[in-house]
Amino acid sequence: MSRSVEASVLARFLPFLDWTRGYDRETLIHDGIAAAVVTLMLIPQSLAYAMLAGLPPQIGLYASVLPIMAYALFGSSRTLAVGPVAILSLLTLAAAGRVGAPGSAEFIAAALILAFLSGLILLVMGVLRLGFLANLLSHPVVSGFITASAVLIVISQLKHLFGISAPGHTAPEMIASLISHLGDTHLPTLILGVSVMAFLFWARFGAAAFLARLGLNARAAGLTARLLPIAAIVGATLTVAMLRLDAQGVHVTGAIPAGFPPLTLPVFDAPLWLSLIGPAALLAMIGFVESVSVAQTLAAKRRETIDPNQELAGLGMANVAASLTGGYPVTGGLARSIVNFEAGARTPAAGIFTALGILLSSLLLTPWLAKLPSAALSATIIVAVSGLMDWKILRRVWSYSKSDFTAILATILVTLGWGVEPGILTGVGLSLALFVWRASRPHAAIVGRVPGSEHFRNIKRHAVFTDPRLLTLRVDESLTFLNARWLEGFVQAEVAHHPELKHLILMCSAVNMIDASALESLERIHDRLRDADIALHLSEVKGPVMDRIGKTHLVRSLSGEVWLSQHAAFDTLIARLDRDAANALERDPLLPSGLI
Amino acid sequence: MSRSVEASVLARFLPFLDWTRGYDRETLIHDGIAAAVVTLMLIPQSLAYAMLAGLPPQIGLYASVLPIMAYALFGSSRTLAVGPVAILSLLTLAAAGRVGAPGSAEFIAAALILAFLSGLILLVMGVLRLGFLANLLSHPVVSGFITASAVLIVISQLKHLFGISAPGHTAPEMIASLISHLGDTHLPTLILGVSVMAFLFWARFGAAAFLARLGLNARAAGLTARLLPIAAIVGATLTVAMLRLDAQGVHVTGAIPAGFPPLTLPVFDAPLWLSLIGPAALLAMIGFVESVSVAQTLAAKRRETIDPNQELAGLGMANVAASLTGGYPVTGGLARSIVNFEAGARTPAAGIFTALGILLSSLLLTPWLAKLPSAALSATIIVAVSGLMDWKILRRVWSYSKSDFTAILATILVTLGWGVEPGILTGVGLSLALFVWRASRPHAAIVGRVPGSEHFRNIKRHAVFTDPRLLTLRVDESLTFLNARWLEGFVQAEVAHHPELKHLILMCSAVNMIDASALESLERIHDRLRDADIALHLSEVKGPVMDRIGKTHLVRSLSGEVWLSQHAAFDTLIARLDRDAANALERDPLLPSGLI
Repeated sequence: MSRSVEASVLARFLPFLDWTRGYDRETLIHDGIAAAVVTLMLIPQSLAYAMLAGLPPQIGLYASVLPIMAYALFGSSRTLAVGPVAILSLLTLAAAGRVGAPGSAEFIAAALILAFLSGLILLVMGVLRLGFLANLLSHPVVSGFITASAVLIVISQLKHLFGISAPGHTAPEMIASLISHLGDTHLPTLILGVSVMAFLFWARFGAAAFLARLGLNARAAGLTARLLPIAAIVGATLTVAMLRLDAQGVHVTGAIPAGFPPLTLPVFDAPLWLSLIGPAALLAMIGFVESVSVAQTLAAKRRETIDPNQELAGLGMANVAASLTGGYPVTGGLARSIVNFEAGARTPAAGIFTALGILLSSLLLTPWLAKLPSAALSATIIVAVSGLMDWKILRRVWSYSKSDFTAILATILVTLGWGVEPGILTGVGLSLALFVWRASRPHAAIVGRVPGSEHFRNIKRHAVFTDPRLLTLRVDESLTFLNARWLEGFVQAEVAHHPELKHLILMCSAVNMIDASALESLERIHDRLRDADIALHLSEVKGPVMDRIGKTHLVRSLSGEVWLSQHAAFDTLIARLDRDAANALERDPLLPSGLI
Repeated sequence: MSRSVEASVLARFLPFLDWTRGYDRETLIHDGIAAAVVTLMLIPQSLAYAMLAGLPPQIGLYASVLPIMAYALFGSSRTLAVGPVAILSLLTLAAAGRVGAPGSAEFIAAALILAFLSGLILLVMGVLRLGFLANLLSHPVVSGFITASAVLIVISQLKHLFGISAPGHTAPEMIASLISHLGDTHLPTLILGVSVMAFLFWARFGAAAFLARLGLNARAAGLTARLLPIAAIVGATLTVAMLRLDAQGVHVTGAIPAGFPPLTLPVFDAPLWLSLIGPAALLAMIGFVESVSVAQTLAAKRRETIDPNQELAGLGMANVAASLTGGYPVTGGLARSIVNFEAGARTPAAGIFTALGILLSSLLLTPWLAKLPSAALSATIIVAVSGLMDWKILRRVWSYSKSDFTAILATILVTLGWGVEPGILTGVGLSLALFVWRASRPHAAIVGRVPGSEHFRNIKRHAVFTDPRLLTLRVDESLTFLNARWLEGFVQAEVAHHPELKHLILMCSAVNMIDASALESLERIHDRLRDADIALHLSEVKGPVMDRIGKTHLVRSLSGEVWLSQHAAFDTLIARLDRDAANALERDPLLPSGLI
């Protein structure tokens, strides 16, 4: 490769400079085919997810044009397919629903602001290299959250399937109101919805095998099966149009304005923005975590890599783009990205072609969508999100770690019972609390010398030699603010149990780091020990740790010494104590010898 | 000791069962003397801190009766002196100030509710063993917070010293309004206040040495110096009374109702309680952290121990007691506890005697306090909190850790500029973020074999042997949700750089724990590697870690193997690769030999 270093740095921040070089006809064909497949898959999905978010259907299309292009230019994954997704739609519904009724002007404005703010948050995180904050969302908690959200989504769509109205926000509320309104079921809607749903489930689980039996090769059968949903949508729309089912009460999408995505600017309203910044941060984090995990999975299959900080830029630009063109929060979608990958997409150009395909659809297709029944969209949503549920994780984590299991179960129950935001916050809070709890009580031991060796082992597990005037404590963990106070209490309790103590050695062989809090605690421990006439020693301090604490007041004024080896510390100190005792005896020959 | 196990368990939860046994005349005399000294010190302090909190002065006395008794019965420290303290008074002012104007009925009611809620929070934390959550407040952040709070307190008291009114909440606001009102300075007030302040500073820093020169022994001189503040208060009150300075505009405390502390019940008002629960949690945490640190320091001097969970019970009961007897939030005070300790207190009975002393004062002394000038109380506060400032910590932490320094500096600046609650939350948030950041990027290395040995070392630091078909990664940290995603990216990036890779070994010699998130990540890594035809191996897995992961799907279906030693893994896999290559050559003799 002959490109200069400057070009390579630039290409890191503008990845398209990289993949556009050497773009050839073969790549174009591959990207074009993938784009066609994804476009056909995305049309019903974008309409359905917009409905799920409580937004007019065209907003789903708008969110699938410029955001996809923005990601193609700035994102680092070659095959990630960005656009509206189920979980972010649900989060948008929850957040914007506090500002206005779904579908109202205030609600739509709030969705725009959410996209803008979450885009901004992602960009700022990218610039400040804050992607690591997403680590607070642990895998199991996110899995539990997504599973519970998928359940919430399925329950929320049942009313469209039954053709009834059943208000409610939480799972218990929605189920109760569904049951009480079940008598109003609209039979034509139900038959239509269930038929579409059955067809979609077959398309998902049985169609590929069926098509393969008809003679298609596995890849073609798989891709064809992925396109069956659009056939279901077309079929349902034609059925409604021909049987005039909308006149009989089957709810349809109605007229959708045709045209380019509108240019929009999120309205600035300080209190409203302040109240939406929390939900926007949540949208940003959840979207980022999910998208990065999909992108990593796909990149790994071709031994490519993605750059998490560049992903922040790509997703941030996509969301800002959504807010400027009448959309709502977007991120990389799992199913769609897999289809893009399997259909042969090689570069982000596939995304640009998809965006053009959706743009064309929003110009030409919208008149045909007027008779699209809501029940068919609900069926699409239900089938799509049922693939997101992962119940096995409960059993798996239960058998592995009860504390992690508690965090997941709490996430699921709170999400179902109180909503998505309390749910994910509970999960993050609990996993952090569990981590702090674990880090607060590290493994530690009193050690003594294994006879005839230079090894020091836990006195509880080994027959070792100790001396009542000398205590060696080993802590198997870095010393930080999370366990600094524990350390103070631990040392104090051990000292209280050893009345004859003269020297305390802290054996630091497993201490990789000592932060400023732990240093403070060591200073307090040192001062308290000195007040009780006990010298504090450190042994086996690692090089990098010693580099740091060597210059501190603690080490410069240490009542004891810093020893390279625990063995030397132990031997020398005991020899000194014995010598001092002998000297004391010499000075005072009247002292009864039994005291020594 | 012959007491039964039951009695010992009971004594753990009711510590007074322990120290009341064998209580004798000598202990009584020691405790009595300490109680007398602390009572004389506590009278001006309790009045002053109540004024600082924006409460009528008698509330300071009420908060020093039943709460002290409650702590004496349930707390685990033998010498901690509980009562009103400066920092909690400032926090109370900030929290109750959002409910009503300082001194108003709503304000006083809010202070009661804060005491009740923080007491409840402490008790719940004690029952659920949640004391470890206080670890989130790191030493340096708390020091920075207390220093900044002390500055805020000094600035807030200057107006009383100058006899002017200068509204404002943050440091810049108060300074600006002080300067603009400086022309209204009331000279008699200023002279009185500055005189008292000068005397108190001398009492603090010079009196003990002076008294020692007069012939007192060091301990008596120190304790006498501690009692000079009450002399200053008496002197200032007499000066006002004799010169009738109150008629000339010197602000005085005014009539204080004499009598027992009233029985009160915090008014229940759900929205108000909800809005105060955050501030109450902060009061509980800050009070707990400060108190435990004081109690540990004192206990260490006599080789006693304290039980942090029992401290939660003691402080919780003290605050509930405060809320039932017209008080406000209390905790263990630093200066007062040291005086109690140095005056010879041996058991919590000293606290009970102190409470009785304050009770007596609130019955008999209050008429004499009517002419007590506010400026003298402000001087008391300023001198008391100036001892809380610790500026050296900035320099100390700066030289030790720039990231910890950032957290402290932000805490100080936000506390001064925006107030106490944003300040401490900034500190906690930043230290947690820094911790997550550190944990998110652990030290990791590609290792190879040191020639002629069984040791494996970092390829960047040592001349070691590696094979392009085999990659060994060593992570020097436990694998948790904080670095699980980093691990995925790290493995993926390394794999992308090694196109010939067939086997990847994860060397786990430094991994003390693998949590459920990290297990999920390992499963993803495993599946991605399998998709790319690379086998995943684990080597040198520690016993406790293996116990856990041995039963998991990951290990049962591992594409590679789990090896006891890295050496065995490396040798065996290379031998296998060489044999396979030789076999391939045999099967296809036309292959040019240069390919092997």
